[in-house]
Amino acid sequence: MGEATLDPIARATELAESAVRGDRRALARLLTAVENRTPVAEAAMRQLYPRAGRAHTVGITGPPGAGKSTLVAAIIGELRAASRPVAVIAVDPSSPITGGALLGDRVRMQSYAEDPDVFIRSMAARGHAGGLASTSGAAAALLDAVGFDTVLVETVGTGQSEVEIAAAADTTVVLEAPEMGDEVQAIKAGLLEVADIVVVNKADRPGAQRTAAQLRAMLVAAPAAAGSTERPRPKRPQVLLATATTGEGVPELLAALDRRRSAPDDESRRAARLARAEAQVWAIVGDRLRARLLAEGDGTGTRELLAAVAEHRLDPFSAADELIGKAVGT
Amino acid sequence: MGEATLDPIARATELAESAVRGDRRALARLLTAVENRTPVAEAAMRQLYPRAGRAHTVGITGPPGAGKSTLVAAIIGELRAASRPVAVIAVDPSSPITGGALLGDRVRMQSYAEDPDVFIRSMAARGHAGGLASTSGAAAALLDAVGFDTVLVETVGTGQSEVEIAAAADTTVVLEAPEMGDEVQAIKAGLLEVADIVVVNKADRPGAQRTAAQLRAMLVAAPAAAGSTERPRPKRPQVLLATATTGEGVPELLAALDRRRSAPDDESRRAARLARAEAQVWAIVGDRLRARLLAEGDGTGTRELLAAVAEHRLDPFSAADELIGKAVGT
Repeated sequence: MGEATLDPIARATELAESAVRGDRRALARLLTAVENRTPVAEAAMRQLYPRAGRAHTVGITGPPGAGKSTLVAAIIGELRAASRPVAVIAVDPSSPITGGALLGDRVRMQSYAEDPDVFIRSMAARGHAGGLASTSGAAAALLDAVGFDTVLVETVGTGQSEVEIAAAADTTVVLEAPEMGDEVQAIKAGLLEVADIVVVNKADRPGAQRTAAQLRAMLVAAPAAAGSTERPRPKRPQVLLATATTGEGVPELLAALDRRRSAPDDESRRAARLARAEAQVWAIVGDRLRARLLAEGDGTGTRELLAAVAEHRLDPFSAADELIGKAVGT
Repeated sequence: MGEATLDPIARATELAESAVRGDRRALARLLTAVENRTPVAEAAMRQLYPRAGRAHTVGITGPPGAGKSTLVAAIIGELRAASRPVAVIAVDPSSPITGGALLGDRVRMQSYAEDPDVFIRSMAARGHAGGLASTSGAAAALLDAVGFDTVLVETVGTGQSEVEIAAAADTTVVLEAPEMGDEVQAIKAGLLEVADIVVVNKADRPGAQRTAAQLRAMLVAAPAAAGSTERPRPKRPQVLLATATTGEGVPELLAALDRRRSAPDDESRRAARLARAEAQVWAIVGDRLRARLLAEGDGTGTRELLAAVAEHRLDPFSAADELIGKAVGT
């Protein structure tokens, strides 16, 4: 209603004002705009972004089967019991085939359909690499701006983008289940270094205490191994036990999150905020530059350069230099 | 030896010439340079990239536990039995903690340590989003340039970046095991739409035939659901059965790969080549632009803009516009 007749800025203003007043349909529309990178999204972000910065964003990641969705549901329950509002972004690398939303989210949404202080949203990858990080960062900022003071960012996949997204939250929770398979153990190592808190879920299963003990031992040993200058220095995450299905250990997790939230800013949180900002800014810079290059002279020259690289008639560095020369001047 | 005394171009020329002559140590050094995005990598790519374009790159992906590594080993065995050279890039989102290489690769490398026509390399993510796609694309081009006519790109994670990398191969093989858990099924949907060939592995297990039948039914039904204009039109992948541990079904998979290879170029292969080229070119454009902006006036202005976004004093679109203005002029 009105979408077609209003210009993007007026439309964005209308939606942003409604969303701030608590209109969840307006919020949902803004998030769709963000996902599709429309001009309405840009105008809304310009208006709402400065209102954000107060929420605690919590990244939740872990190998498939560790129980992420169940833990997220338990955290929602615990926050709601304390009358605290909560928004969830489920980052889902899936596809047009599933419609970009997992069945589990729809089920979870249903149980909070009547509760205006719970907002759950799946976000799928669109467009080029890095799209997911900038989109989920923008979505988190919107949810923050309209007043959700906890924003959970659950990543479904366990790839580079997903780990980066979880790591760019104020606090990153990595979930692990006792006695998972070999391959998962290997992936875990990539996850552990971004963790602020490690939760060993399914604590009622045999081996949970042993898994927790192993993790604590690994995590104490870890700092010595990290000579890398490219990544922030390894954290020393807290290791907690929980059983998401029964809620056991969830109050302790929430207490740990609140302690981190009220603690003075540390380097890892400043780095996370900067990472979120950079992901968004560089994605926009890239989008703008590509748009400019693809618009210039109908984009023919740019497309020809890319085709020449695809056909190995030109190397990618020479093509990049030519494109930068065209856009920037040299 | 000589690294410190030669300039990057001379060093790259030396390594490139050695690598083309079959020197695997020189090739390994070039790949390290590519991974670290050094000036030697740039110079070597400028020289070697135009020699590439003949190899068949095959992306292999699938959920953890589907048996990707075992299938890759079986494909290597089959190719070597036919005296065909093969290179493998194992894209691994893991970390300094594991050293960026999976134990499994080291084991597999061992069994081909004496065979100069098998080259296996793990590549980890470095730096910003999209890094993995451009790095693995550059690595595939190098392996192609020095004469490997089959380059397998195995992605370990199942995130956005990894799916994009697998999808950017000439042929994308998605592996599936019978009766995997619910969450994996959901991830699978994101994988299926990029598949040219789906392999149901562990065909000796109960349920394999049923899984294959289900997949065939799904894949026939899929095209109707895809109204997206952003992605290439859905493929109609072939569904094969295999048991990677025994090698059963692997000759049929290889025959399917060879059929695709010798078939006239289709739209999906042209799109994949263009995607590989674009990933590399835009990553280089982004790197160059960031470097330029971070060098300008010591980078203070750029870092201040990014900090202002991190602290929500400025929205990311305004920051991006200012940065583009600085780099490009408006």
